[in-house]
Amino acid sequence: MTNPEEAIAAPAADAPAEAPKAPKAPKEKKEKPKKEAKAEGEGKKSGGGAAAGGESKGLGLRNSKKDNFGDWYSELVVASELISYYDVSGCYILRPWAYAMWEVVQGWFDQRIKKLGVQNSYFPLFITEDVLNTEKDHVEGFAPEVAWVTKYGNSTMEKPIAIRPTSETVMYPYFSQWIRSHRDLPLRLNQWTNVVRWEFKYPTPFIRSREFLWQEGHTAFATQEEAEREVLDILELYRGVYEDLLAVPVTKGKKSKKEQFAGAFYTTTVEAYIPETGRGIQGATSHCLGQNFSKMFNITYEDDDRQKQHVWQNSWGLTTRSLGVMIMTHADDKGLVLPPRVAPKQVVLIPIPKASTAPEAVQAMLDKVDELTKALEDKGVRVVTDTRSNYTPGWKYNHWELKGLPLRVELGPKDMDNAAVMTCRRDTGAKEVVPWADVATRIPELLETIQADMFAAAKSRTANCTETCHSWEEFMAALGNKHMALTPWADEEEIEEEVKKKSTTPDAMGAKTLCLPFEAPPLPEGTKCFYSGKPAKNWALWGRSY
Amino acid sequence: MTNPEEAIAAPAADAPAEAPKAPKAPKEKKEKPKKEAKAEGEGKKSGGGAAAGGESKGLGLRNSKKDNFGDWYSELVVASELISYYDVSGCYILRPWAYAMWEVVQGWFDQRIKKLGVQNSYFPLFITEDVLNTEKDHVEGFAPEVAWVTKYGNSTMEKPIAIRPTSETVMYPYFSQWIRSHRDLPLRLNQWTNVVRWEFKYPTPFIRSREFLWQEGHTAFATQEEAEREVLDILELYRGVYEDLLAVPVTKGKKSKKEQFAGAFYTTTVEAYIPETGRGIQGATSHCLGQNFSKMFNITYEDDDRQKQHVWQNSWGLTTRSLGVMIMTHADDKGLVLPPRVAPKQVVLIPIPKASTAPEAVQAMLDKVDELTKALEDKGVRVVTDTRSNYTPGWKYNHWELKGLPLRVELGPKDMDNAAVMTCRRDTGAKEVVPWADVATRIPELLETIQADMFAAAKSRTANCTETCHSWEEFMAALGNKHMALTPWADEEEIEEEVKKKSTTPDAMGAKTLCLPFEAPPLPEGTKCFYSGKPAKNWALWGRSY
Repeated sequence: MTNPEEAIAAPAADAPAEAPKAPKAPKEKKEKPKKEAKAEGEGKKSGGGAAAGGESKGLGLRNSKKDNFGDWYSELVVASELISYYDVSGCYILRPWAYAMWEVVQGWFDQRIKKLGVQNSYFPLFITEDVLNTEKDHVEGFAPEVAWVTKYGNSTMEKPIAIRPTSETVMYPYFSQWIRSHRDLPLRLNQWTNVVRWEFKYPTPFIRSREFLWQEGHTAFATQEEAEREVLDILELYRGVYEDLLAVPVTKGKKSKKEQFAGAFYTTTVEAYIPETGRGIQGATSHCLGQNFSKMFNITYEDDDRQKQHVWQNSWGLTTRSLGVMIMTHADDKGLVLPPRVAPKQVVLIPIPKASTAPEAVQAMLDKVDELTKALEDKGVRVVTDTRSNYTPGWKYNHWELKGLPLRVELGPKDMDNAAVMTCRRDTGAKEVVPWADVATRIPELLETIQADMFAAAKSRTANCTETCHSWEEFMAALGNKHMALTPWADEEEIEEEVKKKSTTPDAMGAKTLCLPFEAPPLPEGTKCFYSGKPAKNWALWGRSY
Repeated sequence: MTNPEEAIAAPAADAPAEAPKAPKAPKEKKEKPKKEAKAEGEGKKSGGGAAAGGESKGLGLRNSKKDNFGDWYSELVVASELISYYDVSGCYILRPWAYAMWEVVQGWFDQRIKKLGVQNSYFPLFITEDVLNTEKDHVEGFAPEVAWVTKYGNSTMEKPIAIRPTSETVMYPYFSQWIRSHRDLPLRLNQWTNVVRWEFKYPTPFIRSREFLWQEGHTAFATQEEAEREVLDILELYRGVYEDLLAVPVTKGKKSKKEQFAGAFYTTTVEAYIPETGRGIQGATSHCLGQNFSKMFNITYEDDDRQKQHVWQNSWGLTTRSLGVMIMTHADDKGLVLPPRVAPKQVVLIPIPKASTAPEAVQAMLDKVDELTKALEDKGVRVVTDTRSNYTPGWKYNHWELKGLPLRVELGPKDMDNAAVMTCRRDTGAKEVVPWADVATRIPELLETIQADMFAAAKSRTANCTETCHSWEEFMAALGNKHMALTPWADEEEIEEEVKKKSTTPDAMGAKTLCLPFEAPPLPEGTKCFYSGKPAKNWALWGRSY
């Protein structure tokens, strides 16, 4: 549906005078930051909560996922009412359709970390300069991106105050006060907050923004073993968010030294991959901080022998980026394709009376819609009904496809005769007749099938995009194919830097290690590093990346 | 319990070597901002998540609610582990015990506004100077308190960027883009965020801080009538948060012109009152913005006659202050007293073996604790068990009293013989024997009784603190009694300013109107303003205030 002129049904004949207007370009000054905004498709809309208006333009996307991915994505997130561009560059508005999905992610993850014994809390947005500077590697990693408050009203602050880019240095001075005995351990805190990183990489809605929402967990343990167990427990939850909730396949692994979190002992990660751009993307990271921060912040406990010991710490974070990865993975040229488990609404019920349908028959149809809605809601299905009389069925189909609803349920005169509904899957377009009597059981099943099929399809796409490479030629060929490269590697930072430089082309950024995957082929003795020819220490997954 | 030396039980004989240490004073530099920190009582603690340590000091409060309220409050919020003072003045850490209550408030309110049709969203933290300046009255109200970001890394920003003190000006430029037709209305958004107001009034944990958490609702309607209906719907929910959830009585009313929100058409409020300090406190406000902002931000819709109309807008907010008001209302010299509905844990179950109890009998007791816990949890009761062997029952009683748990349930050898438990209410100290067979029904009942009794007691305390005054002498006498004054009033801003000046004493701030209460006595024609002698226009509730 790259030609919106053809794809969009005109409003029905009974459309009121103020029928949907064509979208207008956003006001340049207010809406469109100069650098990153592209082909937004944002405009005025009509109809309670409807997307861009009807007439002969406005629904459907002008860009295609295959041909111009970046423009397609920018247009999509605005047209589907997830995002509005904001007049502070690199900041975005999360509109209700996006925020509702973030609430689903929050609910899923929050419940599970609480079961693990993690408690929520809230630490301030601000950090003093002295505290921020406590851990050297850490602050060096973040310093260039830190935003500073220097004024209030018309006055100048005595000392500038940083806005948190992450909260290690906010929290750990207090960890050192709260922890004394081994019985104060483990201390496991989490917070759901905004953070600010004044980055200058190309900002992209969800994927990279200067302010973003996340959860950050910060925990302290008596032993390395306990800390390391939690690192993997959390990583498994992050896998769950991506694979089980968002239907996005990820690779679990460890980051190379060069790519790990500033100040960490080591970083584990779930890495996703966008086939269309051939770029990997870091999904979420779970860091073992070791005793690096506890030594700097003097966080100690007395062990059974009354000896002071530094605690072992972790930190771990998942951001609104996860929604961006999900969108990029599943959406198509008609709009969003939302996995049922994260979709704010899973089913749209559309009655389709004909112009010739008698009023009583229309009423019977509407009553049946209500009845089916209730039956589905009783089963926990999130349903929306579209009974608006001033839009054609075709316009509605396009609208709800743009919004990504997993399943459309139509109820027309023929369906009324047959005591059934027609269902249509967003992911495959497959249609299925479901008798009324089966709606409350079959539709939840269909939603689970859609969820599973979406994940399987994404997994198969990604699996076809990894090439095992033993030489530089194979490596560059894989990148050229927009694939990831799995290579034996000598695990040396200099190699990673050289590879990045040498793989940079006029058209594409250099490749880096995405992770050292936990699941990898055997590495027989004598296997050589694909780049240096030295003995390989491990397998590394490489790719261009976000 | 003002003398902690006497009040605290020594640790049991079997306390391990690293028995609770005496609290240490917080590190001045890190923990205690010079101006506002007082008698914090914060120190090192021992025992998994326990409060300040045992020995001969540390539990119980040094200050009393009656004698030195301010010190008592500051000590209480730290000792009960709600708050830690932070090294940026006016910012506080919300520890898990506090944050869990905020989550209860969020859950209660969020569910209800969603039922009303409000949707959650997230708008950026930052505002450009131009946008902030759009509504003149509004910006004048906030300008002195706005914090400005002027730097990132080592660079200076082209233009300073404000941190939101509230989000009217963040959101409304987008309202003007999203709203076109009357079918785009109502638009009802909410967000749960942090905001920053760099105030110089005395900061107090929860009550007044430079960063705080809140929800802010922002809505737009076609008609004044719909907008005004929502103002009151939301105000009723705010009353519910205070009265039904936090057991804090409030007075609903309208703010005077002088006290209303900067830029509002009018402001409605729920006002609470702290008898010990004789000060009123604004609980939450629901503003009708009228068309003030829609005219400035050009937010219009086309009506049925294709005429452009400015929308009617509301904004409304509830903050973490609500928890502070709840604490001040109910807590006593032993610590917090939490209303069951908001308490993170409602019941503590404590087995009390004697030194002479045989091991099998101890095990039977522990098994019974598990069984009762499960029975209560199945009824939705939030239970904690305290089976630690290195603390005495007395120490545990004091600890859980400090934390404010509504109901203590003891299980000793005698109770085992009688197949019953002994319950003890935190609010009244009343004890009641409950047979095991009745635990799962009687304890939820008791919790509801505690909730109701706490509200009734607070309501009666407040009701005794309002004096109807018809003259200046009566008015000053009421203030002298630490009471609020309900007066007939000519409703003139100059009177309010004069009253504030004239009622200021060397020891006490001046009084202002808290609200014009919705429920007030009749105002017969000819009634005169208590201050000016002019014809009274309405009843006003006055008081010193937070």
